[in-house]
Amino acid sequence: VTEELDQRLVFAHRLADGARAIIRPYFRKPVAVTDKGWSGFYDPVTDADKKAEQVVRDMIANAYPKDGIVGEELGNAPGSSGYRWVIDPIDGTRAFIAGQPLWGTLIGLEKDSVPVFGMLEQPFLRERFVGSNDRAELHNSEGVTPLAARRCATLSDAVISTTHPNDHFDHSERAQFARVESACRLSRYGGDCYAYGLVALGFIDLVMEARLAHWDIAPLIPIIRGAGGILTDWHGQPWRPGANVLAAGDARVHAEALKLLAP
Amino acid sequence: VTEELDQRLVFAHRLADGARAIIRPYFRKPVAVTDKGWSGFYDPVTDADKKAEQVVRDMIANAYPKDGIVGEELGNAPGSSGYRWVIDPIDGTRAFIAGQPLWGTLIGLEKDSVPVFGMLEQPFLRERFVGSNDRAELHNSEGVTPLAARRCATLSDAVISTTHPNDHFDHSERAQFARVESACRLSRYGGDCYAYGLVALGFIDLVMEARLAHWDIAPLIPIIRGAGGILTDWHGQPWRPGANVLAAGDARVHAEALKLLAP
Repeated sequence: VTEELDQRLVFAHRLADGARAIIRPYFRKPVAVTDKGWSGFYDPVTDADKKAEQVVRDMIANAYPKDGIVGEELGNAPGSSGYRWVIDPIDGTRAFIAGQPLWGTLIGLEKDSVPVFGMLEQPFLRERFVGSNDRAELHNSEGVTPLAARRCATLSDAVISTTHPNDHFDHSERAQFARVESACRLSRYGGDCYAYGLVALGFIDLVMEARLAHWDIAPLIPIIRGAGGILTDWHGQPWRPGANVLAAGDARVHAEALKLLAP
Repeated sequence: VTEELDQRLVFAHRLADGARAIIRPYFRKPVAVTDKGWSGFYDPVTDADKKAEQVVRDMIANAYPKDGIVGEELGNAPGSSGYRWVIDPIDGTRAFIAGQPLWGTLIGLEKDSVPVFGMLEQPFLRERFVGSNDRAELHNSEGVTPLAARRCATLSDAVISTTHPNDHFDHSERAQFARVESACRLSRYGGDCYAYGLVALGFIDLVMEARLAHWDIAPLIPIIRGAGGILTDWHGQPWRPGANVLAAGDARVHAEALKLLAP
Protein backbone atom coordinates (compact mmCIF):
# COMPACT_ATOMS: atom_id res chain seq x y z
CA VAL A 1 0.00 0.00 0.00
CA THR A 2 2.84 2.40 0.83
CA GLU A 3 4.35 1.88 -2.59
CA GLU A 4 0.97 2.32 -4.31
CA LEU A 5 0.55 5.57 -2.43
CA ASP A 6 4.08 6.87 -2.94
CA GLN A 7 3.82 6.34 -6.69
CA ARG A 8 0.61 8.31 -6.75
CA LEU A 9 2.14 11.19 -4.78
CA VAL A 10 4.90 11.58 -7.35
CA PHE A 11 2.29 11.32 -10.07
CA ALA A 12 0.17 14.03 -8.41
CA HIS A 13 2.94 16.58 -9.08
CA ARG A 14 2.66 15.74 -12.77
CA LEU A 15 -1.09 16.36 -12.56
CA ALA A 16 -0.49 19.74 -10.93
CA ASP A 17 2.13 20.59 -13.56
CA GLY A 18 -0.41 19.73 -16.25
CA ALA A 19 -3.15 21.83 -14.66
CA ARG A 20 -0.74 24.76 -14.16
CA ALA A 21 0.28 24.74 -17.82
CA ILE A 22 -3.34 24.85 -18.95
CA ILE A 23 -4.78 27.32 -16.47
CA ARG A 24 -1.97 29.86 -16.14
CA PRO A 25 -2.42 31.45 -19.61
CA TYR A 26 -6.13 32.07 -18.93
CA PHE A 27 -5.49 34.12 -15.79
CA ARG A 28 -5.66 37.87 -16.46
CA LYS A 29 -6.44 37.29 -20.09
CA PRO A 30 -8.49 40.35 -21.04
CA VAL A 31 -12.23 39.70 -20.92
CA ALA A 32 -14.52 41.98 -22.88
CA VAL A 33 -17.39 43.51 -20.96
CA THR A 34 -19.54 45.35 -23.48
CA ASP A 35 -22.83 47.14 -23.64
CA LYS A 36 -24.49 43.79 -24.13
CA GLY A 37 -23.04 42.44 -20.89
CA TRP A 38 -20.95 39.44 -20.03
CA SER A 39 -23.33 36.75 -21.22
CA GLY A 40 -22.41 35.19 -24.52
CA PHE A 41 -18.85 36.37 -24.17
CA TYR A 42 -15.78 34.31 -23.67
CA ASP A 43 -15.62 32.97 -20.12
CA PRO A 44 -12.01 32.21 -19.20
CA VAL A 45 -12.89 30.44 -15.98
CA THR A 46 -15.27 27.90 -17.44
CA ASP A 47 -12.92 27.22 -20.30
CA ALA A 48 -9.79 26.85 -18.15
CA ASP A 49 -11.73 24.84 -15.53
CA LYS A 50 -13.06 22.25 -17.93
CA LYS A 51 -9.91 21.89 -20.01
CA ALA A 52 -7.71 21.44 -16.96
CA GLU A 53 -10.03 18.92 -15.33
CA GLN A 54 -10.29 16.93 -18.55
CA VAL A 55 -6.51 16.74 -18.93
CA VAL A 56 -6.03 15.72 -15.29
CA ARG A 57 -8.75 13.06 -15.58
CA ASP A 58 -7.24 11.70 -18.80
CA MET A 59 -3.82 11.46 -17.13
CA ILE A 60 -5.29 9.58 -14.18
CA ALA A 61 -7.38 7.24 -16.34
CA ASN A 62 -4.29 6.43 -18.35
CA ALA A 63 -1.95 5.82 -15.40
CA TYR A 64 -4.40 4.39 -12.85
CA PRO A 65 -7.44 3.14 -14.75
CA LYS A 66 -8.94 1.48 -11.67
CA ASP A 67 -8.85 4.64 -9.51
CA GLY A 68 -12.05 6.59 -9.03
CA ILE A 69 -12.28 10.30 -9.86
CA VAL A 70 -14.62 13.01 -8.60
CA GLY A 71 -14.29 16.51 -10.00
CA GLU A 72 -16.22 19.74 -9.81
CA GLU A 73 -16.79 20.14 -13.53
CA LEU A 74 -17.01 16.64 -14.96
CA GLY A 75 -18.65 14.55 -12.28
CA ASN A 76 -18.02 11.24 -10.62
CA ALA A 77 -16.24 8.21 -12.16
CA PRO A 78 -16.29 5.28 -9.72
CA GLY A 79 -13.21 3.07 -9.44
CA SER A 80 -12.32 -0.32 -7.99
CA SER A 81 -8.82 0.19 -6.54
CA GLY A 82 -9.93 1.86 -3.31
CA TYR A 83 -8.21 5.09 -4.43
CA ARG A 84 -10.24 8.10 -5.46
CA TRP A 85 -8.90 11.36 -6.86
CA VAL A 86 -10.71 14.58 -5.93
CA ILE A 87 -10.25 17.54 -8.27
CA ASP A 88 -11.26 21.19 -8.26
CA PRO A 89 -9.49 22.74 -11.23
CA ILE A 90 -10.16 26.34 -10.12
CA ASP A 91 -11.24 26.93 -6.53
CA GLY A 92 -11.85 30.65 -6.12
CA THR A 93 -13.56 31.48 -9.39
CA ARG A 94 -14.45 34.97 -8.20
CA ALA A 95 -10.87 35.80 -7.31
CA PHE A 96 -9.81 34.43 -10.70
CA ILE A 97 -12.35 36.64 -12.49
CA ALA A 98 -11.23 39.71 -10.53
CA GLY A 99 -7.55 39.12 -11.34
CA GLN A 100 -6.59 38.37 -7.71
CA PRO A 101 -4.04 35.55 -7.35
CA LEU A 102 -5.79 33.89 -4.39
CA TRP A 103 -7.46 30.99 -6.23
CA GLY A 104 -5.95 27.55 -6.70
CA THR A 105 -6.10 24.13 -8.27
CA LEU A 106 -6.97 21.39 -5.77
CA ILE A 107 -5.91 17.80 -6.28
CA GLY A 108 -6.54 15.27 -3.54
CA LEU A 109 -6.29 11.52 -3.11
CA GLU A 110 -8.50 9.39 -0.88
CA LYS A 111 -7.99 5.77 0.17
CA ASP A 112 -11.26 4.07 1.10
CA SER A 113 -12.88 7.52 1.26
CA VAL A 114 -10.29 8.93 3.70
CA PRO A 115 -8.18 11.90 2.44
CA VAL A 116 -4.56 10.73 2.47
CA PHE A 117 -2.89 13.36 0.36
CA GLY A 118 -3.65 16.82 -1.05
CA MET A 119 -2.26 19.64 -3.13
CA LEU A 120 -3.09 23.31 -3.50
CA GLU A 121 -1.40 24.55 -6.66
CA GLN A 122 -1.27 28.31 -7.41
CA PRO A 123 -0.15 28.68 -11.03
CA PHE A 124 0.36 32.47 -11.01
CA LEU A 125 2.46 32.54 -7.83
CA ARG A 126 4.10 29.23 -8.78
CA GLU A 127 3.41 27.93 -5.29
CA ARG A 128 2.32 24.41 -4.41
CA PHE A 129 1.14 23.46 -0.92
CA VAL A 130 1.43 19.69 -0.42
CA GLY A 131 0.22 17.65 2.55
CA SER A 132 -0.19 14.05 3.63
CA ASN A 133 -1.74 14.38 7.13
CA ASP A 134 1.56 13.66 8.90
CA ARG A 135 3.52 16.39 7.14
CA ALA A 136 3.13 19.31 4.73
CA GLU A 137 5.47 21.27 2.47
CA LEU A 138 5.51 24.37 0.32
CA HIS A 139 7.10 23.97 -3.11
CA ASN A 140 8.08 27.24 -4.79
CA SER A 141 10.97 28.85 -6.64
CA GLU A 142 13.06 28.75 -3.48
CA GLY A 143 12.71 24.99 -3.19
CA VAL A 144 10.78 22.91 -0.67
CA THR A 145 9.99 24.24 2.83
CA PRO A 146 8.21 22.40 5.66
CA LEU A 147 4.85 23.92 6.52
CA ALA A 148 3.89 24.47 10.16
CA ALA A 149 0.77 26.23 11.37
CA ARG A 150 1.32 28.94 13.97
CA ARG A 151 0.76 28.49 17.69
CA CYS A 152 -2.06 30.78 18.79
CA ALA A 153 -3.50 30.43 22.27
CA THR A 154 -6.63 32.57 22.06
CA LEU A 155 -9.05 34.01 19.52
CA SER A 156 -8.08 37.50 20.66
CA ASP A 157 -4.72 36.91 18.96
CA ALA A 158 -6.14 35.16 15.91
CA VAL A 159 -6.43 36.17 12.26
CA ILE A 160 -9.71 34.76 10.88
CA SER A 161 -10.63 34.35 7.22
CA THR A 162 -13.75 33.58 5.25
CA THR A 163 -14.38 33.83 1.54
CA HIS A 164 -17.33 36.22 1.69
CA PRO A 165 -19.15 37.23 4.88
CA ASN A 166 -22.46 37.77 3.09
CA ASP A 167 -22.70 35.51 0.04
CA HIS A 168 -21.95 32.14 1.58
CA PHE A 169 -23.70 32.13 4.96
CA ASP A 170 -27.40 31.88 5.75
CA HIS A 171 -28.88 34.19 8.36
CA SER A 172 -27.96 32.17 11.45
CA GLU A 173 -24.55 31.20 10.09
CA ARG A 174 -23.81 34.86 9.49
CA ALA A 175 -24.59 35.57 13.14
CA GLN A 176 -22.42 32.64 14.25
CA PHE A 177 -19.54 33.79 12.08
CA ALA A 178 -19.91 37.35 13.40
CA ARG A 179 -19.65 36.08 16.99
CA VAL A 180 -16.37 34.33 16.28
CA GLU A 181 -15.07 37.14 14.05
CA SER A 182 -15.67 39.79 16.70
CA ALA A 183 -13.58 37.76 19.16
CA CYS A 184 -10.62 37.73 16.75
CA ARG A 185 -7.79 40.19 16.33
CA LEU A 186 -8.21 40.61 12.58
CA SER A 187 -10.53 39.32 9.86
CA ARG A 188 -9.76 38.85 6.19
CA TYR A 189 -12.17 38.08 3.35
CA GLY A 190 -11.75 36.60 -0.11
CA GLY A 191 -9.60 33.67 0.84
CA ASP A 192 -11.07 30.63 -0.90
CA CYS A 193 -8.65 27.69 -0.86
CA TYR A 194 -5.64 29.96 -0.49
CA ALA A 195 -6.69 30.80 3.09
CA TYR A 196 -5.96 27.18 4.07
CA GLY A 197 -2.52 27.50 2.53
CA LEU A 198 -1.97 30.55 4.74
CA VAL A 199 -3.06 28.54 7.80
CA ALA A 200 -0.44 25.94 6.91
CA LEU A 201 2.10 28.73 6.35
CA GLY A 202 1.36 30.20 9.78
CA PHE A 203 -0.28 33.52 8.90
CA ILE A 204 -3.99 32.80 9.26
CA ASP A 205 -5.22 31.09 12.43
CA LEU A 206 -8.84 30.25 11.64
CA VAL A 207 -10.97 29.65 8.53
CA MET A 208 -14.77 29.39 8.58
CA GLU A 209 -16.84 28.43 5.55
CA ALA A 210 -20.34 27.07 4.95
CA ARG A 211 -21.48 24.04 2.94
CA LEU A 212 -18.32 23.17 1.06
CA ALA A 213 -18.42 20.51 -1.63
CA HIS A 214 -16.27 17.40 -1.60
CA TRP A 215 -13.71 18.88 -4.05
CA ASP A 216 -13.57 22.19 -2.16
CA ILE A 217 -12.08 20.71 0.95
CA ALA A 218 -10.98 17.04 0.75
CA PRO A 219 -7.66 17.99 -0.94
CA LEU A 220 -6.98 20.60 1.78
CA ILE A 221 -7.49 18.35 4.82
CA PRO A 222 -4.12 16.52 4.55
CA ILE A 223 -2.38 19.92 4.18
CA ILE A 224 -3.99 21.41 7.29
CA ARG A 225 -3.36 18.25 9.31
CA GLY A 226 0.14 17.86 7.93
CA ALA A 227 0.97 21.39 9.11
CA GLY A 228 -0.28 20.57 12.60
CA GLY A 229 -3.72 22.11 12.25
CA ILE A 230 -7.22 20.80 12.83
CA LEU A 231 -10.26 20.78 10.54
CA THR A 232 -13.82 19.81 11.53
CA ASP A 233 -17.37 20.96 10.92
CA TRP A 234 -18.92 23.66 13.12
CA HIS A 235 -19.89 21.05 15.75
CA GLY A 236 -16.39 19.61 16.06
CA GLN A 237 -17.37 16.55 14.04
CA PRO A 238 -15.33 15.15 11.14
CA TRP A 239 -15.99 17.03 7.94
CA ARG A 240 -18.30 15.43 5.32
CA PRO A 241 -19.17 16.78 1.85
CA GLY A 242 -21.63 19.62 2.21
CA ALA A 243 -20.75 20.36 5.83
CA ASN A 244 -19.47 23.67 7.16
CA VAL A 245 -15.77 23.98 7.85
CA LEU A 246 -13.88 25.20 10.89
CA ALA A 247 -10.14 24.94 10.26
CA ALA A 248 -7.50 26.15 12.70
CA GLY A 249 -3.77 26.11 13.07
CA ASP A 250 -3.96 25.61 16.83
CA ALA A 251 -6.43 23.33 18.67
CA ARG A 252 -6.92 25.99 21.35
CA VAL A 253 -8.46 28.58 19.03
CA HIS A 254 -10.44 25.78 17.37
CA ALA A 255 -11.92 24.81 20.75
CA GLU A 256 -12.66 28.43 21.65
CA ALA A 257 -14.43 28.99 18.32
CA LEU A 258 -16.51 25.82 18.79
CA LYS A 259 -17.77 27.19 22.10
CA LEU A 260 -18.89 30.42 20.43
CA LEU A 261 -20.59 28.46 17.65
CA ALA A 262 -22.69 26.39 20.08
CA PRO A 263 -26.36 27.49 20.26
CA VAL B 1 9.47 71.63 -16.14
CA THR B 2 9.22 68.58 -18.41
CA GLU B 3 12.85 67.78 -17.81
CA GLU B 4 12.49 68.29 -14.04
CA LEU B 5 9.57 65.91 -14.08
CA ASP B 6 11.14 63.29 -16.35
CA GLN B 7 14.22 63.10 -14.15
CA ARG B 8 12.04 62.51 -11.13
CA LEU B 9 10.09 59.74 -12.87
CA VAL B 10 13.30 57.84 -13.57
CA PHE B 11 14.36 58.49 -10.00
CA ALA B 12 11.04 57.17 -8.68
CA HIS B 13 11.90 53.70 -9.99
CA ARG B 14 15.04 53.79 -7.88
CA LEU B 15 12.91 54.69 -4.87
CA ALA B 16 10.61 51.73 -5.57
CA ASP B 17 13.62 49.45 -6.02
CA GLY B 18 14.92 50.62 -2.66
CA ALA B 19 11.59 50.08 -0.92
CA ARG B 20 11.22 46.63 -2.52
CA ALA B 21 14.63 45.52 -1.30
CA ILE B 22 13.83 46.53 2.26
CA ILE B 23 10.23 45.35 2.53
CA ARG B 24 10.32 42.06 0.61
CA PRO B 25 12.31 40.10 3.24
CA TYR B 26 9.81 41.06 5.96
CA PHE B 27 6.83 39.60 4.12
CA ARG B 28 5.87 36.15 5.39
CA LYS B 29 8.64 36.20 7.92
CA PRO B 30 7.32 34.00 10.73
CA VAL B 31 5.71 35.99 13.52
CA ALA B 32 5.34 34.37 16.91
CA VAL B 33 1.90 34.45 18.46
CA THR B 34 2.24 33.04 21.95
CA ASP B 35 0.20 32.61 25.06
CA LYS B 36 1.08 36.15 26.00
CA GLY B 37 -0.37 37.54 22.77
CA TRP B 38 1.03 39.68 19.98
CA SER B 39 1.89 42.70 22.04
CA GLY B 40 5.55 43.12 22.79
CA PHE B 41 6.50 40.82 19.95
CA TYR B 42 8.30 41.68 16.79
CA ASP B 43 6.00 43.55 14.43
CA PRO B 44 7.21 43.07 10.86
CA VAL B 45 4.90 45.67 9.39
CA THR B 46 5.91 48.55 11.60
CA ASP B 47 9.54 47.70 11.18
CA ALA B 48 9.43 47.32 7.40
CA ASP B 49 7.18 50.38 7.07
CA LYS B 50 9.45 52.74 8.95
CA LYS B 51 12.71 51.45 7.51
CA ALA B 52 11.45 51.67 3.96
CA GLU B 53 10.01 55.15 4.40
CA GLN B 54 13.23 56.37 6.00
CA VAL B 55 15.35 55.06 3.12
CA VAL B 56 13.04 56.55 0.50
CA ARG B 57 13.01 59.91 2.30
CA ASP B 58 16.79 59.91 2.60
CA MET B 59 17.15 59.20 -1.11
CA ILE B 60 14.77 62.06 -1.97
CA ALA B 61 16.42 64.50 0.45
CA ASN B 62 19.76 63.67 -1.10
CA ALA B 63 18.72 63.94 -4.75
CA TYR B 64 16.07 66.69 -4.51
CA PRO B 65 16.64 68.56 -1.25
CA LYS B 66 14.09 71.26 -2.13
CA ASP B 67 11.22 68.81 -2.74
CA GLY B 68 8.61 68.34 -0.05
CA ILE B 69 7.79 64.90 1.37
CA VAL B 70 4.69 63.59 3.08
CA GLY B 71 4.66 60.00 4.32
CA GLU B 72 2.41 57.85 6.44
CA GLU B 73 4.98 56.94 9.06
CA LEU B 74 7.33 59.89 9.33
CA GLY B 75 5.20 62.95 8.72
CA ASN B 76 5.39 66.04 6.60
CA ALA B 77 8.57 67.78 5.41
CA PRO B 78 7.68 70.96 3.47
CA GLY B 79 9.70 71.88 0.39
CA SER B 80 10.24 74.89 -1.83
CA SER B 81 10.52 73.42 -5.34
CA GLY B 82 6.77 72.98 -5.95
CA TYR B 83 7.27 69.21 -6.01
CA ARG B 84 6.04 67.03 -3.20
CA TRP B 85 6.56 63.28 -2.81
CA VAL B 86 3.78 61.25 -1.22
CA ILE B 87 4.76 57.92 0.33
CA ASP B 88 2.91 55.00 1.89
CA PRO B 89 5.54 52.32 2.45
CA ILE B 90 2.99 49.55 3.10
CA ASP B 91 -0.59 50.15 2.07
CA GLY B 92 -2.61 47.10 3.10
CA THR B 93 -1.09 46.32 6.47
CA ARG B 94 -3.76 43.74 7.24
CA ALA B 95 -3.12 41.83 4.02
CA PHE B 96 0.61 41.98 4.80
CA ILE B 97 0.03 40.56 8.29
CA ALA B 98 -2.18 37.77 6.91
CA GLY B 99 0.42 36.77 4.30
CA GLN B 100 -1.77 37.82 1.34
CA PRO B 101 0.18 39.50 -1.48
CA LEU B 102 -2.39 42.26 -2.08
CA TRP B 103 -0.60 45.12 -0.29
CA GLY B 104 1.77 47.56 -1.95
CA THR B 105 4.23 50.41 -1.65
CA LEU B 106 2.83 53.72 -2.91
CA ILE B 107 5.09 56.46 -4.21
CA GLY B 108 3.53 59.56 -5.76
CA LEU B 109 4.70 62.93 -6.98
CA GLU B 110 2.68 66.15 -6.89
CA LYS B 111 3.43 69.43 -8.64
CA ASP B 112 1.80 72.38 -6.89
CA SER B 113 -0.37 69.91 -4.94
CA VAL B 114 -1.65 68.17 -8.12
CA PRO B 115 -0.77 64.46 -8.49
CA VAL B 116 1.32 64.15 -11.66
CA PHE B 117 2.82 60.71 -11.27
CA GLY B 118 2.30 57.60 -9.16
CA MET B 119 3.56 54.08 -8.54
CA LEU B 120 2.09 51.00 -6.90
CA GLU B 121 4.95 48.60 -6.24
CA GLN B 122 4.21 45.01 -5.14
CA PRO B 123 7.50 43.51 -3.95
CA PHE B 124 6.30 39.90 -3.59
CA LEU B 125 4.70 39.70 -7.04
CA ARG B 126 7.46 41.88 -8.51
CA GLU B 127 4.84 44.03 -10.17
CA ARG B 128 4.95 47.80 -10.51
CA PHE B 129 1.95 49.82 -11.71
CA VAL B 130 3.09 53.21 -13.01
CA GLY B 131 0.90 56.12 -14.11
CA SER B 132 1.19 59.76 -15.13
CA ASN B 133 -2.47 60.75 -15.78
CA ASP B 134 -2.09 60.53 -19.57
CA ARG B 135 -0.78 56.96 -19.60
CA ALA B 136 -0.11 53.99 -17.34
CA GLU B 137 2.05 50.89 -17.55
CA LEU B 138 2.63 47.61 -15.73
CA HIS B 139 6.28 46.69 -15.17
CA ASN B 140 6.86 43.01 -14.35
CA SER B 141 9.08 40.09 -15.30
CA GLU B 142 7.56 40.05 -18.77
CA GLY B 143 8.58 43.66 -19.43
CA VAL B 144 6.42 46.76 -19.72
CA THR B 145 2.75 46.56 -20.76
CA PRO B 146 0.35 49.48 -21.27
CA LEU B 147 -2.49 49.53 -18.75
CA ALA B 148 -6.05 50.14 -19.92
CA ALA B 149 -9.13 49.96 -17.74
CA ARG B 150 -11.96 47.82 -19.08
CA ARG B 151 -15.05 49.21 -20.80
CA CYS B 152 -18.10 48.42 -18.70
CA ALA B 153 -21.44 49.99 -19.54
CA THR B 154 -23.52 49.17 -16.48
CA LEU B 155 -23.15 48.25 -12.82
CA SER B 156 -24.91 44.97 -13.52
CA ASP B 157 -21.76 43.90 -15.41
CA ALA B 158 -19.32 45.39 -12.91
CA VAL B 159 -16.91 43.83 -10.42
CA ILE B 160 -16.79 46.05 -7.31
CA SER B 161 -14.14 46.02 -4.60
CA THR B 162 -13.72 47.48 -1.15
CA THR B 163 -11.12 46.71 1.48
CA HIS B 164 -13.51 45.69 4.25
CA PRO B 165 -17.30 46.12 4.14
CA ASN B 166 -17.60 46.50 7.91
CA ASP B 167 -14.43 47.99 9.34
CA HIS B 168 -14.05 51.08 7.19
CA PHE B 169 -17.56 52.46 6.70
CA ASP B 170 -19.84 54.23 9.17
CA HIS B 171 -23.49 53.21 9.36
CA SER B 172 -24.78 55.34 6.48
CA GLU B 173 -21.73 54.66 4.31
CA ARG B 174 -22.27 50.95 4.81
CA ALA B 175 -25.82 51.34 3.53
CA GLN B 176 -24.62 53.41 0.57
CA PHE B 177 -21.97 50.84 -0.28
CA ALA B 178 -24.53 48.03 0.00
CA ARG B 179 -26.82 49.81 -2.49
CA VAL B 180 -24.07 50.03 -5.08
CA GLU B 181 -22.72 46.55 -4.29
CA SER B 182 -26.11 44.92 -4.74
CA ALA B 183 -26.37 46.46 -8.22
CA CYS B 184 -23.05 44.91 -9.26
CA ARG B 185 -22.30 41.52 -10.79
CA LEU B 186 -19.65 40.55 -8.26
CA SER B 187 -18.06 42.02 -5.15
CA ARG B 188 -14.59 41.42 -3.79
CA TYR B 189 -13.15 42.43 -0.43
CA GLY B 190 -9.62 42.90 0.86
CA GLY B 191 -8.28 44.96 -2.00
CA ASP B 192 -6.42 47.90 -0.44
CA CYS B 193 -4.23 49.65 -3.03
CA TYR B 194 -3.98 46.55 -5.18
CA ALA B 195 -7.65 46.92 -6.18
CA TYR B 196 -6.75 50.12 -8.05
CA GLY B 197 -4.04 48.23 -9.89
CA LEU B 198 -6.69 45.71 -10.94
CA VAL B 199 -8.90 48.56 -12.18
CA ALA B 200 -6.00 49.76 -14.32
CA LEU B 201 -5.41 46.18 -15.47
CA GLY B 202 -9.07 45.83 -16.51
CA PHE B 203 -10.36 43.24 -14.01
CA ILE B 204 -12.11 45.35 -11.39
CA ASP B 205 -14.58 48.02 -12.51
CA LEU B 206 -15.33 49.96 -9.35
CA VAL B 207 -13.60 50.67 -6.02
CA MET B 208 -15.28 52.34 -3.05
CA GLU B 209 -13.47 53.37 0.11
CA ALA B 210 -14.11 55.77 2.98
CA ARG B 211 -11.89 58.53 4.40
CA LEU B 212 -8.59 57.75 2.74
CA ALA B 213 -5.49 59.65 3.77
CA HIS B 214 -3.34 61.66 1.39
CA TRP B 215 -0.75 58.86 1.01
CA ASP B 216 -3.43 56.20 0.53
CA ILE B 217 -4.69 57.63 -2.72
CA ALA B 218 -2.63 60.50 -4.24
CA PRO B 219 -0.09 58.05 -5.76
CA LEU B 220 -2.93 55.99 -7.29
CA ILE B 221 -4.76 58.83 -9.05
CA PRO B 222 -2.30 59.17 -11.98
CA ILE B 223 -2.45 55.37 -12.46
CA ILE B 224 -6.27 55.26 -12.61
CA ARG B 225 -6.41 58.29 -14.91
CA GLY B 226 -3.53 57.06 -17.02
CA ALA B 227 -5.40 53.81 -17.63
CA GLY B 228 -8.49 55.74 -18.76
CA GLY B 229 -10.38 55.54 -15.48
CA ILE B 230 -11.99 58.15 -13.26
CA LEU B 231 -11.56 58.85 -9.54
CA THR B 232 -13.64 61.26 -7.43
CA ASP B 233 -15.24 61.43 -4.00
CA TRP B 234 -18.74 60.01 -3.44
CA HIS B 235 -20.32 63.26 -4.69
CA GLY B 236 -18.41 63.33 -7.97
CA GLN B 237 -16.10 66.05 -6.67
CA PRO B 238 -12.29 65.96 -6.96
CA TRP B 239 -10.75 63.87 -4.26
CA ARG B 240 -9.11 65.62 -1.26
CA PRO B 241 -7.24 64.04 1.65
CA GLY B 242 -9.74 62.46 4.02
CA ALA B 243 -12.51 62.19 1.44
CA ASN B 244 -14.22 58.98 0.34
CA VAL B 245 -13.15 57.45 -2.96
CA LEU B 246 -15.17 56.26 -5.93
CA ALA B 247 -12.82 54.96 -8.62
CA ALA B 248 -14.00 53.39 -11.86
CA GLY B 249 -12.55 52.11 -15.08
CA ASP B 250 -15.48 53.40 -17.12
CA ALA B 251 -17.25 56.76 -16.65
CA ARG B 252 -20.64 55.09 -17.20
CA VAL B 253 -20.45 52.85 -14.13
CA HIS B 254 -19.00 55.77 -12.19
CA ALA B 255 -22.05 57.89 -13.09
CA GLU B 256 -24.45 55.08 -12.26
CA ALA B 257 -22.80 54.55 -8.87
CA LEU B 258 -22.97 58.30 -8.11
CA LYS B 259 -26.74 58.22 -8.66
CA LEU B 260 -27.12 55.37 -6.17
CA LEU B 261 -24.94 57.21 -3.65
CA ALA B 262 -27.09 60.35 -3.74
CA PRO B 263 -29.36 60.77 -0.70
